[in-house]
Amino acid sequence: MNEPMTSETYDPKTTTLLSFSDAVPGFVEGSDTPRAYLERCIETVAALEPAIRAFVTLNLDGAREAADASTARYRAGRALSPLDGMPVGIKDVHETADMPMQVGSPVFEGWSSGWDGACVFALRQAGAAIVGKTVTTEFAFATPGPTRNPWDGARTPGGSSSGSGAAIGARMLPAATGSQVRGSILRPAAYCGAYTLKASYGAINALGGFPSAPSLVHVGFITGTLADMWIASHCVSRIAGGDPGHPSLAGPATLPRPGKPARLIRLETAGWAATTEATRAAFEAWLGTLSDAGIEIAGRADDPEIEAYERDLVTLREVIALILTYEGRWPLAMYAERAWDKLSQRVQDRVTAGRELTPEDYAAALEWCIGFRARHQAFSGRADGFVTLNQVDPAPVGMAVGDMVYGEPSSVLGCPALNLPLLSVGGMPLGVQLMGWFREDARIVATAHWLVHAVRGIAAPG
Amino acid sequence: MNEPMTSETYDPKTTTLLSFSDAVPGFVEGSDTPRAYLERCIETVAALEPAIRAFVTLNLDGAREAADASTARYRAGRALSPLDGMPVGIKDVHETADMPMQVGSPVFEGWSSGWDGACVFALRQAGAAIVGKTVTTEFAFATPGPTRNPWDGARTPGGSSSGSGAAIGARMLPAATGSQVRGSILRPAAYCGAYTLKASYGAINALGGFPSAPSLVHVGFITGTLADMWIASHCVSRIAGGDPGHPSLAGPATLPRPGKPARLIRLETAGWAATTEATRAAFEAWLGTLSDAGIEIAGRADDPEIEAYERDLVTLREVIALILTYEGRWPLAMYAERAWDKLSQRVQDRVTAGRELTPEDYAAALEWCIGFRARHQAFSGRADGFVTLNQVDPAPVGMAVGDMVYGEPSSVLGCPALNLPLLSVGGMPLGVQLMGWFREDARIVATAHWLVHAVRGIAAPG
Repeated sequence: MNEPMTSETYDPKTTTLLSFSDAVPGFVEGSDTPRAYLERCIETVAALEPAIRAFVTLNLDGAREAADASTARYRAGRALSPLDGMPVGIKDVHETADMPMQVGSPVFEGWSSGWDGACVFALRQAGAAIVGKTVTTEFAFATPGPTRNPWDGARTPGGSSSGSGAAIGARMLPAATGSQVRGSILRPAAYCGAYTLKASYGAINALGGFPSAPSLVHVGFITGTLADMWIASHCVSRIAGGDPGHPSLAGPATLPRPGKPARLIRLETAGWAATTEATRAAFEAWLGTLSDAGIEIAGRADDPEIEAYERDLVTLREVIALILTYEGRWPLAMYAERAWDKLSQRVQDRVTAGRELTPEDYAAALEWCIGFRARHQAFSGRADGFVTLNQVDPAPVGMAVGDMVYGEPSSVLGCPALNLPLLSVGGMPLGVQLMGWFREDARIVATAHWLVHAVRGIAAPG
Repeated sequence: MNEPMTSETYDPKTTTLLSFSDAVPGFVEGSDTPRAYLERCIETVAALEPAIRAFVTLNLDGAREAADASTARYRAGRALSPLDGMPVGIKDVHETADMPMQVGSPVFEGWSSGWDGACVFALRQAGAAIVGKTVTTEFAFATPGPTRNPWDGARTPGGSSSGSGAAIGARMLPAATGSQVRGSILRPAAYCGAYTLKASYGAINALGGFPSAPSLVHVGFITGTLADMWIASHCVSRIAGGDPGHPSLAGPATLPRPGKPARLIRLETAGWAATTEATRAAFEAWLGTLSDAGIEIAGRADDPEIEAYERDLVTLREVIALILTYEGRWPLAMYAERAWDKLSQRVQDRVTAGRELTPEDYAAALEWCIGFRARHQAFSGRADGFVTLNQVDPAPVGMAVGDMVYGEPSSVLGCPALNLPLLSVGGMPLGVQLMGWFREDARIVATAHWLVHAVRGIAAPG
C-alpha cells in the first residue's frame, strides 16, 4: 500500500475528474445515456474499490434502475432537473430507504429508519441515481474507516467525508454528499483534489440523518467540477429546502459566471502555525500570481481589524470544541449507556467531556459566536472574499484523517466556503479555501469561478 | 358517550389535578414512595383508560422498574433530580427505545428507531418513569385519535397532544410531553383544565422525534400544577439542552415566586371573532377582577401600536400555514410516494399544497416573521405580559380537535406562552393564555404564579 494507486500525480492545471454537466448534452441529443454514464462509473468502482474502499454499502441494482428511468426521461424530452441521471454517493450519515445508515459505528450495524433523509429524497426527486453509502469516520468524528487516498494509497483521504472525497478523487462518481461540523467536507475534498462548496449554514436540509452537532453541521457536495458542485448544491437546496427556518440557496441554477475579485483578505487562521514550509510556499506562490493579476491581497499586517479577526480565529478552536461536545451529549451519552464497549476511546472521551459542561458554558459559547459572526460580516463591503488553505500539508501517510483546523472558521461562521484544488505539493493535491459571506453563496462562487479559470484556463470545467 | 366521564364539573377555584412536587417530601421522609405513587396512577389508568383512551401504547412493567429504582434512590438519599420518580406520558411524536413511535398514522405502524428522543432520554436521566405513549392526531395535525375529554366524554380533549392533555385532566399522570407547531400544547391543556408552558422556541431539545415543521415546533409539558410544569420544563431543558444553537431555560430550578404584574396587554388575536359570547364574557369578567386588583389592562383601543400588532396577528394565520406546509414537504411527500392510500385526505391535501410553494414564498414568510417578532419584542419594556385565550369556547362536542387560532401567535413568535386553567364555562375548563418575551420564561411564569394565586388563593398548588 505504499505505492500510489494510479500512475498519475495531481497536476492542478491539467488533472480532470468526472464531470456530469458536460455529459448532459449527450443525453439530450442521444449520443450518451445516464445508464451508460453509470456503467462507466461502475467500471471504475469495480477496478478501484478493492484498494480504495470508498463505500460501506453499494446498491448497483437500485442505481441502474434509476439510471434507466432517467434514460427514458431524456428520450422523452422530460428530464426532471439538471441532476437527472447523476450517479451520486451518499455519506453514511444520511438516511436512505434502501440501505442501512451505520455512521461508521458497530452501534449502528444494520440500522435503518426505512426512509430517505431530506437531501437523499431531494436527489431522487431530481432524478439522480443513488449508487451507495460512502465511508465516514465513527459518528463522523472518531475512528477512521478503511478508505485510502486515490492519489496515494498510503495516505488518508481525509475525514469525516472520507469515502465521498475518495470516490470523487478516484473518478468513481461525479458527486457525493458530505457533512461538516469542523472541516469534514472541505478537508477530504482538498486531500483528494475535488471541488466542494460548504454552503451557508442551513442552505441544504440536514434532516434525516445522524445528528452531529446540528447547530454547526452543514450538508454539501464533493464533486469533480465547479459546475457540478454548484448545480448539485443549488438543485438539492431548492427541492429539499434549507434547514427549517433557513432559505434555500439564492442565485442562478447554473454556475455563476466568473467574477474577478478586486481585493481578497488572506487569512492565516490557527492553521498557519501547523502548516509545513512546502505548503506555505505553494500558497504564497499562488497569492503572488493573484497579485500579478492585479488583485489586492490584504493580511493581518495591513489592517488591525484583520489582526483582531485572526486572533478570534485562534480562540474559536476552543469554542467549537465546546459546542460540538455539548451538542453531542444526546445522542452519544445514550449510546454510551447501552453500548459503552462498542465506542472507541475517542467517543468515550467525548461522552465524559460532555458530562462536565453546563448549560451556562454552552450559552456563553453561543454568545461568543454571535459576536464573531458580526466581526466577519463587517468585512463584507471591504473585500470580495477571504483566501486561506484547507490543509496544513498534503494528506498525511496513515489512516488518521488529518488536521481539521482550517475548516473550523467557516463551520462556526456559517459562511460559504469552497475547496478549489488549484495547487499541488509533491504530486499530491493541495486545496485553497475561499470564504464569503453568509447567504451570499453565488457571489463567492463567481469569484471561485474566476480563480479556477486563472489557473486552468478558459477551457476548465464549468 | 354523551355522559360526562366523571361526576365532577370543572371549578377553577377548587379543582385539583395530580401534583408530583407535593409528593416528593413524602418520598424523602419515607411515608410514600415513587412506586406507590405510580401504582396510584396506574389504578386511575385502569379505571378510566377504557373510556378516555389517552394512550396508544403502555409500558407499565418498564415504568414499575423505573419507579422501583427511584424508590431505592430516595431511600439512599440520592434522588437524581426534582423529577426523580415522576410518572410521565410521552406524546407519540417523540421516540422511546422501549415503544414504537406511530405518530397517529398507519404509515408508522410498529415503527421504532430503537432509541430515545432527546427529551425522553433526559427524563430517564432525571429518574422519571415513562408510563406510555399518548395519542396524537395523524402526523400531529390531521385525523384525530380516539381520545375523549375527561370532563365530558362526548367532547374532544383537543389536539394534537390529545392523549397528554386527557391523561393530565383525568388525573392519570402528573405530567406528559406535548409538542406544538400551531396550538397543540396550549389547546389540549386548555380543554382539559391543565397547566402548560410552551417555553421559548428552542428551550427544550426536540431532536429524536417526528419532524413537524421544525422551525415552529416546541416541546413542552402538560401538567396538573404550575409547579410541576416549571420543574419538568426546567429540568429537561437543562439535561437535554435546548434545540441546537439555543440555550436552556434560564431561571431557578423551582417555581419562580409570584410577581404581581402592573400592566398587561390584552390581545384579541384572530381568535376573538370566532369566540363565543359565553367565553368572551368569562374572559372579560376575569380581566375585570385584574383591574379591580389594580392591574392596568391595555388593549387595541388604547394604543395604535397594539392595534397594528393585532392586525399582524390576523396576517400571521396565512404565514404560519405557509411555513408549516413548506417544512412538511419532506417528509410528507415521501410518505405520499410510498403510501398515498394510507394518508388521510387532509394529509394528501397538504402534500399537494406543498408542491405549489416555492423557495421564494418560504423565504418571504421567514422575513415576515423576523419583522413581526421585532414588533412583539418592542413591547417588552411597556408591559409585564400579554393576556388572551387559548380556546374559542370549551372543548367542542365530537372528535374534531377544535380551533387552533389562539395558539398560533406564540408559535411564530417563539415567546413563552402558558395555559392557566383559571376559568370555566358550563362546567368545562376554560384556559387563559399568558404570553411573555423570548427567553424570559421565568419572568412570565412568575406573573402566572401571581395570577393563579389570585384565583385559587395562596394554598394553590405551587
